[in-house]
Parts: sequence; C-alpha cells; structure tokens
Amino acid sequence: MYRPQIKVLDCTIRDGGLMNNWEFSKEMVRDVFQGLVEAGVDYVELGYRADKKMFSPKESGPWRFCDEEDLREVAYKCDTKISVMCDVGRTDYGTIVPADQSIVSMYRVATYVKEIDKAIHMIRHIKDLGYEVTCNIMAVSTNLEPDLDEALDQLAETNVDVVYLVDSFGYFYSEQIHYLADKYRAKLPGKELGIHCHNNQQLAFANTIEGIIKNINYVDGSIYGMGRAGGNCTTELLLSFLKNPKFRLGPVLALAEKYFMKMQTELKWGYELPYMITGSLNKHPRAALAFVKSSIGGNNTRSIVEFYDELIAAEGVD
Amino acid sequence: MYRPQIKVLDCTIRDGGLMNNWEFSKEMVRDVFQGLVEAGVDYVELGYRADKKMFSPKESGPWRFCDEEDLREVAYKCDTKISVMCDVGRTDYGTIVPADQSIVSMYRVATYVKEIDKAIHMIRHIKDLGYEVTCNIMAVSTNLEPDLDEALDQLAETNVDVVYLVDSFGYFYSEQIHYLADKYRAKLPGKELGIHCHNNQQLAFANTIEGIIKNINYVDGSIYGMGRAGGNCTTELLLSFLKNPKFRLGPVLALAEKYFMKMQTELKWGYELPYMITGSLNKHPRAALAFVKSSIGGNNTRSIVEFYDELIAAEGVD
Repeated sequence: MYRPQIKVLDCTIRDGGLMNNWEFSKEMVRDVFQGLVEAGVDYVELGYRADKKMFSPKESGPWRFCDEEDLREVAYKCDTKISVMCDVGRTDYGTIVPADQSIVSMYRVATYVKEIDKAIHMIRHIKDLGYEVTCNIMAVSTNLEPDLDEALDQLAETNVDVVYLVDSFGYFYSEQIHYLADKYRAKLPGKELGIHCHNNQQLAFANTIEGIIKNINYVDGSIYGMGRAGGNCTTELLLSFLKNPKFRLGPVLALAEKYFMKMQTELKWGYELPYMITGSLNKHPRAALAFVKSSIGGNNTRSIVEFYDELIAAEGVD
Repeated sequence: MYRPQIKVLDCTIRDGGLMNNWEFSKEMVRDVFQGLVEAGVDYVELGYRADKKMFSPKESGPWRFCDEEDLREVAYKCDTKISVMCDVGRTDYGTIVPADQSIVSMYRVATYVKEIDKAIHMIRHIKDLGYEVTCNIMAVSTNLEPDLDEALDQLAETNVDVVYLVDSFGYFYSEQIHYLADKYRAKLPGKELGIHCHNNQQLAFANTIEGIIKNINYVDGSIYGMGRAGGNCTTELLLSFLKNPKFRLGPVLALAEKYFMKMQTELKWGYELPYMITGSLNKHPRAALAFVKSSIGGNNTRSIVEFYDELIAAEGVD
C-alpha cells in the first residue's frame, strides 16, 4: 500500500547543471519538464537562482539563474510544481517576485550549518512572499553534532515547510541515515522531512529507501542520476520502487535514452572510482571532479592509485 | 571495531566470465589473483567447474572449467584461498580430486530450490573429498516460501559450511534482505551465512551491508562490479567499508584501472536501464542481456521504452 504523502522531486537540471554548467538547451528542458509531468513527478527543480552580480550570465547557462521569463519558456503551472534552489550568500532577494506573480511554487534554500542564521533570514523572506520553502542543510557528514543540533533547533522555530537530510559527499550508509532521520524527526516536530543523496558509493537509492522507511516524504531523484560527481538517486529507480499508481516510468526511460545516456558517457557522473574514493573518505568531490575532467581531456598523468594515495597522505597532515 | 569473522570472496573471474565467456588471459588472471592476495581478500573464485561433456572447451575460456593445471598456472596456495563454483546438473564429479591433491580450498555449489536434493548429493560428495563447501541457492526471489523453507531444512541436516543468500535478479532491497537473513539464520543453526548480490537496481553494496548488519559473514564482491548484467557488489566498495586492517584498497583500484574500467565500456555490465528494468520486475536478465548486446553491436531497432512495454505486456499473459 503506497503512502500518498510521498513527493518526488526531480533535480536533474539543477544538480545535473553542476556537470555541464547549466548549458541545457531550452528545447531539451521543455522536453524534460513535459516528460516529468507525464511521469507524475511532484516537483521539477529547474535550476538555481544565482546572483548575477556574483556569476556572469555570459559564463553559465540560463538554469543557473532561472529568470522567470526563461522558466515560462520551458514550463507551465500544473500538478507538477516548479522548484528553484537558492544558495545562502549567493542570492539576490530582489529577483524573487511575490508567489502570485511567479510560476515557481517552491524555493529550496541550500545552506551549510555554519550559515544557518542567514538561511533562516532567507527562508522567512521567501515564505513571506507566499512560496513553499525548504531548507537543505548540506554536508552534514562533516559537522560537529552540537552545531547540527543547534541549527535544527533554530529551524524548528521557523515556518519552513520541509527540512532535507543531504548527503553531499555520498558518504552515508543505512545506519547513519536512520540515526540522522531520527534526530531530524525529534528536533523538528510537525515539519516534513526530505532526503537528497549522492551516489559516490552506489548508495543513493538505498539511502533514499531507508529515508522512506523512516517516514521521510520528500525524496529527490534525477534522470539517469545526473548530478555532481557520483550523481544522485535516479528518478527511474524511485518511480519503479514507489507504488503510487500516478507514477509512470516510461516517460523517464524515454528521456534517459534520448538525452542522458549519451551525456553520461561524455560528462562522467555516477560510479567513477575517484568519486567513490572521496565519498568513502567523507570528502568534497572537487579533487575527484578535477581528476575525472583531466582524464576525459586525456591530460591526466596520475593513476587512480596515486590519486588515492595523495588523498590519504593529505589526511595525515590535516 | 571490525568483525574478524567476515570473509570477502572476490568472484570477478567466475561471475564476470558470464559477460566475456571466461576469455580472460592467463596473464590477466595471474595479475588479478596476485592483486587480490595483496588486497587481503579471503577467497578468490577463479571460475566454474563445468562438465566438458556438456560445454566444449573450444567454445569458452578456461575459467569455465578450472582444470587443476590451469589454476596452478595463475594461482598458488596462500592465505587467500581459491574457490570454484559448480552448477548442479552441469558438473562431472570425476573432475574433483581429493582436497589434498588440489590447490582449491572451497567449492560453491550453485542450485535452484527445486534441485536441492541434487545439490545436497553434490555437497556431501565434495565435503567427503575434504573441501570447504557452500550452497548458493539462486533466484530465491522467485520461490514459493514453503519450498525455500523445506530446502533450508534439508540443508540444515547436512555438513555444508556456508549457505548463501543470493539475489540473482537484483530484485531485493533492505527489508527483504533482513527478512531472508532472519529466515536463513533461524533455519540453519550453527551454519555460516553468505550473501551474493546483483546490482541491477544499484542496491548490491547496500544489500551486502544489510547482510553484514544481520551477521552474515561471507560477502561476495567483484572488481569494478564485473558480473552478469547489473554486475555485483564491487570489491573496492567492500574493502573501503570493512574496517579489518588486513584489507588494502590500492591493489584493487590498480586492477580496476588496468583492466576493468575499459572492459566495462565494451561489455556493459552495471547500471544499464534494461538490467534495471528486469531487476525491478524480478525477472531473469536474459532479455535485457540480449537487448544490451544488440545495442553494443548497433543492431538494436527497439527503444528501451519498447523493451519495457514488451516485458510488462508479457507479464499480463503469464
């Protein structure tokens, strides 16, 4: 028996954009949105709302900024809602219009624990404009526990709708998901919880299932797993697992075959050993991304074992 | 704190051989064995002992047969033990010499539930020759539960050393692993348990971890996941997860980089949508293997959505 409260959010364009600098054509994004509507996905995240004073629109594709007019060219209001992510410290509040003038339904505020006060300021501002708002606390695998506890206590006092458990580095396995889900649940009475996993150790889908078992209702996926480094839980696995009859797998398979399988061979998200290594060491994937990028370009003179040995050696001198 | 009872078995050559017809060169298998010795792996499974009256040695590589002299060319007796798999109904007992004349330490008897009587006959025969013997009950996701229960009750009466929980189709997720691990434990007092997972739904490593949590001590991996269709839990993930200081990740990374990353792009085991589809539908991957093979050959005229629709339609007329 399915749980009708479960909401699937597809973040292909947003998290996948980290791999191709958000340079998806409008035609492709329109196709992706339409396919996800047909698949019955609840939310489609079409990108970031980055501050154009900090990042030049000449240097990244439109989905790093998600101007309202660009969104209207590829998507429309319907049962599948549109979501946009805002990074704390990288967002111009002035670009967020009141909800009744926007086709965006939900903003997701991405923050580190140490910036939780700024995040809460942004959450309140966007809630006042009439949107659904989530808080996605990144990289919690690296926090001291009292700091995370305090951030959760502060969020409990806000009107944020959903708080996400985020495994930014692809480090967690089931027991850690259970532990943190219990903590978030205890600290955030009355709030919905979400989960966003990375697949560095091939655990993104498994950890998302563990989140569902722990009554987390907002679950993130991306088509063919497109996302930074190890990528995400795949939307096709999520839809094949969930029993709600409104979901249809076919449109997602069609999108994967039309666009993403080929892109994956060129951009190399997913199970690559450098991403596996940073994930298993609980490290940001930036060194692994640089290694894989130089391998794709044929400019890599180091072996994977050398990459691994360097990371381990760096641990010793922290 | 690590559990010293945990034994890692690498089945790259045996299960991976299902993808390349066991056509690994002796030089490569020697290299693989030596690397796995250096990595501290407990058992290396070098292939099947198939009956040459049923399968011609001219049509498959040597690791489908594992002649004692071939094994001695690539491996040697040491702390890393050698294992060979026997399929019930496809094995010539006469080729199994007494253990004290062999460099093989362990035979793994692979069987379906319906052939458990033949399996037990073979187990007793091989135990009498002085080997460690396991029973790997395949495809248990398709059995009626009373039939599985009876097979386990029969195995409990034998002197088999280890009984493996095998997810042949890559269908299970954590709750099913927990359920079956509890059942095997209850039915097989005093026996060691093992787990062998397939990665069709990116759950092989996760399910192996769940097995470890449930006190299963024999865990299978393969380098870079090489194995039939979705492939296996990867040996590199297992070794990075386990805390026993005897394990070393470097030699496995080196083997993956030297051989298996390139082979994977040609042979296509791992997360491919056709394998994901058969796994999620609890079906044998043979249709998916044929689909992927024809895609590699450029002979595929069907889309993945058509493949999916055909499988679903076939379900309706079963």
